[in-house]
Amino acid sequence: MSEQRQIGVTELVLRDAHQSLMATRMAMEDMVDACADIDAAGYWSVECWGGATFDACIRFLNEDPWERLRTFRELMPNSRLQMLLRGQNLLGYRHYEDSVVERFVDKSAENGMDVYRVFDALNDPRNIAHAMQSVKKAGKHAQGTICYTVSPLHTVEGYVHLAGQLLDMGADSLALKDMAALLKPQAAYDVVKAIKDAYPGTQINVHCHATTGVTLVSLMKAIEAGADVVDTAISSISMGPGHNPTESLVEMLEGTPYSTDLDYDRLLKIKDHFAEIRPKYAQFMSSITGVETEIFKSQIPGGMISNMESQLRQQGAGDRLKEVLEEVPRVRKDAGYPPLVTPSSQIVGTQAVFNVLVGQYKTLTAEFADLMLGYYGKAIGDPNPKVVEIAKKQTGKEPITDRPADLLEPEWDKLKDEAAALEGFNGSDEDVLTYAMFPGVAPGFFTARPEGPKNVGTDPEAAKAASDPNAPGARALNEPIKYSVTVNGKATTVAVEPA
Amino acid sequence: MSEQRQIGVTELVLRDAHQSLMATRMAMEDMVDACADIDAAGYWSVECWGGATFDACIRFLNEDPWERLRTFRELMPNSRLQMLLRGQNLLGYRHYEDSVVERFVDKSAENGMDVYRVFDALNDPRNIAHAMQSVKKAGKHAQGTICYTVSPLHTVEGYVHLAGQLLDMGADSLALKDMAALLKPQAAYDVVKAIKDAYPGTQINVHCHATTGVTLVSLMKAIEAGADVVDTAISSISMGPGHNPTESLVEMLEGTPYSTDLDYDRLLKIKDHFAEIRPKYAQFMSSITGVETEIFKSQIPGGMISNMESQLRQQGAGDRLKEVLEEVPRVRKDAGYPPLVTPSSQIVGTQAVFNVLVGQYKTLTAEFADLMLGYYGKAIGDPNPKVVEIAKKQTGKEPITDRPADLLEPEWDKLKDEAAALEGFNGSDEDVLTYAMFPGVAPGFFTARPEGPKNVGTDPEAAKAASDPNAPGARALNEPIKYSVTVNGKATTVAVEPA
Repeated sequence: MSEQRQIGVTELVLRDAHQSLMATRMAMEDMVDACADIDAAGYWSVECWGGATFDACIRFLNEDPWERLRTFRELMPNSRLQMLLRGQNLLGYRHYEDSVVERFVDKSAENGMDVYRVFDALNDPRNIAHAMQSVKKAGKHAQGTICYTVSPLHTVEGYVHLAGQLLDMGADSLALKDMAALLKPQAAYDVVKAIKDAYPGTQINVHCHATTGVTLVSLMKAIEAGADVVDTAISSISMGPGHNPTESLVEMLEGTPYSTDLDYDRLLKIKDHFAEIRPKYAQFMSSITGVETEIFKSQIPGGMISNMESQLRQQGAGDRLKEVLEEVPRVRKDAGYPPLVTPSSQIVGTQAVFNVLVGQYKTLTAEFADLMLGYYGKAIGDPNPKVVEIAKKQTGKEPITDRPADLLEPEWDKLKDEAAALEGFNGSDEDVLTYAMFPGVAPGFFTARPEGPKNVGTDPEAAKAASDPNAPGARALNEPIKYSVTVNGKATTVAVEPA
Repeated sequence: MSEQRQIGVTELVLRDAHQSLMATRMAMEDMVDACADIDAAGYWSVECWGGATFDACIRFLNEDPWERLRTFRELMPNSRLQMLLRGQNLLGYRHYEDSVVERFVDKSAENGMDVYRVFDALNDPRNIAHAMQSVKKAGKHAQGTICYTVSPLHTVEGYVHLAGQLLDMGADSLALKDMAALLKPQAAYDVVKAIKDAYPGTQINVHCHATTGVTLVSLMKAIEAGADVVDTAISSISMGPGHNPTESLVEMLEGTPYSTDLDYDRLLKIKDHFAEIRPKYAQFMSSITGVETEIFKSQIPGGMISNMESQLRQQGAGDRLKEVLEEVPRVRKDAGYPPLVTPSSQIVGTQAVFNVLVGQYKTLTAEFADLMLGYYGKAIGDPNPKVVEIAKKQTGKEPITDRPADLLEPEWDKLKDEAAALEGFNGSDEDVLTYAMFPGVAPGFFTARPEGPKNVGTDPEAAKAASDPNAPGARALNEPIKYSVTVNGKATTVAVEPA
């Protein structure tokens, strides 16, 4: 047997695992005791920060996300800390002007971040480039990301082309990100192999969710094709809409020409720690626990389906889900086949609901109109010109072909002034950035911050309030954000949520 | 790409899937509506009968298992019906004399069985041979089974040797049976490849549980090595201590040189049917839902651990589980490294509990003594001679090297007479066999049979009684069977249950 090739592992338990399985509610308090073992287990990196964890910190947990980052840095001095960065959107839901992007990267680097996985929901490299450049400038690891999806336009060659564009930006590594568990074993092999062949020596990290039950096989095939690092979550916070278990990956490789070199005793300690923590968050647990393969047919992530169901029930149209599920692929096609990931999944899904309820493109959400007009960037396919015409007519806006962020004026000083006017603002650039990301939530957080962290897992009252949809400030990340649209003089409320 | 190789699939939902996930409680009533879709989906075979389903039928469901078989036959005229047969034990817990084995095979064949997967818990070919011969004589498909386990004595060569012995018996195919989810991908590849190389053209079926999270990868590797048929369960009754999802297998193979040729629309209908049924059996569901990889270290199946925990708690020694877990591998070694599967798992596990509670081999259970003395057959290794001496001394019995069933007198007439004396006996050979398999349960069943099937999933009262450990006749298959042993004048009660 030839010499073993060592496979790196990114542990997801501190970010995507609890985001996917327990609505991002895990408090820092429930992670700290695992950090020493995580730090010593031998991971390639530890993912611990991203949009939803940042949001949940200030919305539900009264935790300063920057403080959380500093604590991780202190508790895991030997680890590469990794975050997920939504390119020009940073951790928010709009495009930011370049100087804000740069400040964000600088400040997060200063507070301890090492690896930036930078992606764009449309795979538009123009939305990724400036963040990548900022990461390089800060001397940190810039990981260019390919969002994996399936459509008549998506090909292995296309992914290789995007890989090349990301490498041209100076990417230190590439991530193949499969947010909907659509990456089948052969495709995993083909994409990784083709990128490795085209760009020998490139480090490739593979991120899969477990939802469809096949992606541990996909990780095996990706490894056989040359993948260098794969993402997993410790078994006690794994599976379902989450990720493949770290321990299963280790065991899977036994006897093969690949090995992880992780410390198994440490893994068992990490597992035991989170097995004990998990029940505290039972009320936030995903209702999807098994395997869901219908995603392959519909290409609609599970979270998006349950959201659309709830939208339809609110409209007294709970029986029309099937029509909506059939409408989603048509809307996605008209939008040029974007990957379905935040925010494109919400935008496409909500428009599909509108089409079924009020007639096809009789009314567009502001977000869908912007998507059709290029204000989110460019998807792989061209938008349907007929729908673009409707979007122009409805909004009075013209389509753009520029990089969306090029239309923005410098905004740092304005954000700083607005943040400075808020009660509880601490004067730091970090606080300005918190406000910039979540202007609706940050003011309340700044005021409440002195009260200290609130663990919604242990405090039954807080847990109850957070799960009560009528309680103020209790809107779960998984609960709908409501849109109100007037159609033919009749008000229609539609709710969307992150998929 | 070379031509696709078609992979057969055995659907487990009607037997092992609900046995593993819902304590074998699914009523025939809840299966019939899925049978047309199962029959038309294109499976290689449909597993639908075995020891635990037979037992549950007469113990909990007041269903005649022979009637269940005839109904399956009628509802699935195009399918190969498959059963799991415990060799010379048939569906019971003792060895039967050869003519009983032959009768059982004849009668089940007559009632509709097609494929007999014949195994022995010790992998002793002498316990398999007569059942195989009976199946051949009945003109049915005889599948010789290798129980997969891991020990210092188990090697690829050893499995190939056993494969040869099974083929010498006239096996129409071989099954590699991984009851504890211990079969890792590389081992799956190596074992299947070696058997295929040694015996070209041999059909190999692979059966894995999902517990450790790695075995869908093992199925992929087994297929790459030449496996012909793999076992899966429809996704809505899959995962955890159950099996890999059928739909995930289909999707896994897309784009590879292998294909299942299953009808996906039928699979979705089967899935939906059982997704609707599943909640009715919530009170019987396995508490293990996630992935459990510690089995690889301890080699102790999850069900066995929870059973030993309960044994220890009953003795006020709940804190000594760790000692017992460390004792199990030693006891297994002393017994010659048997695979841990019913009944060897219970026998070894209970002895380990005894060793910890009353001192190493200070007292032996009657079953463990018999195991050490050869009355269950021969494991791969020799039993520890010191422990054999203790067994001789305690029981006054001599070790045997003969095939255990050779010691049995013809017993059919006696069984027939005993059965005939029971109230409600219907005069058929099937009833004699029911009595022969479960002499403790059959009498009550024969009496109650006219009342007709009892669905413990739908009838809340029956469900309550069945889950109440104090209710008469309510002993769950997963609940302990109590042994009473007197040590130094002190009575000790120990409970064992099927793992």
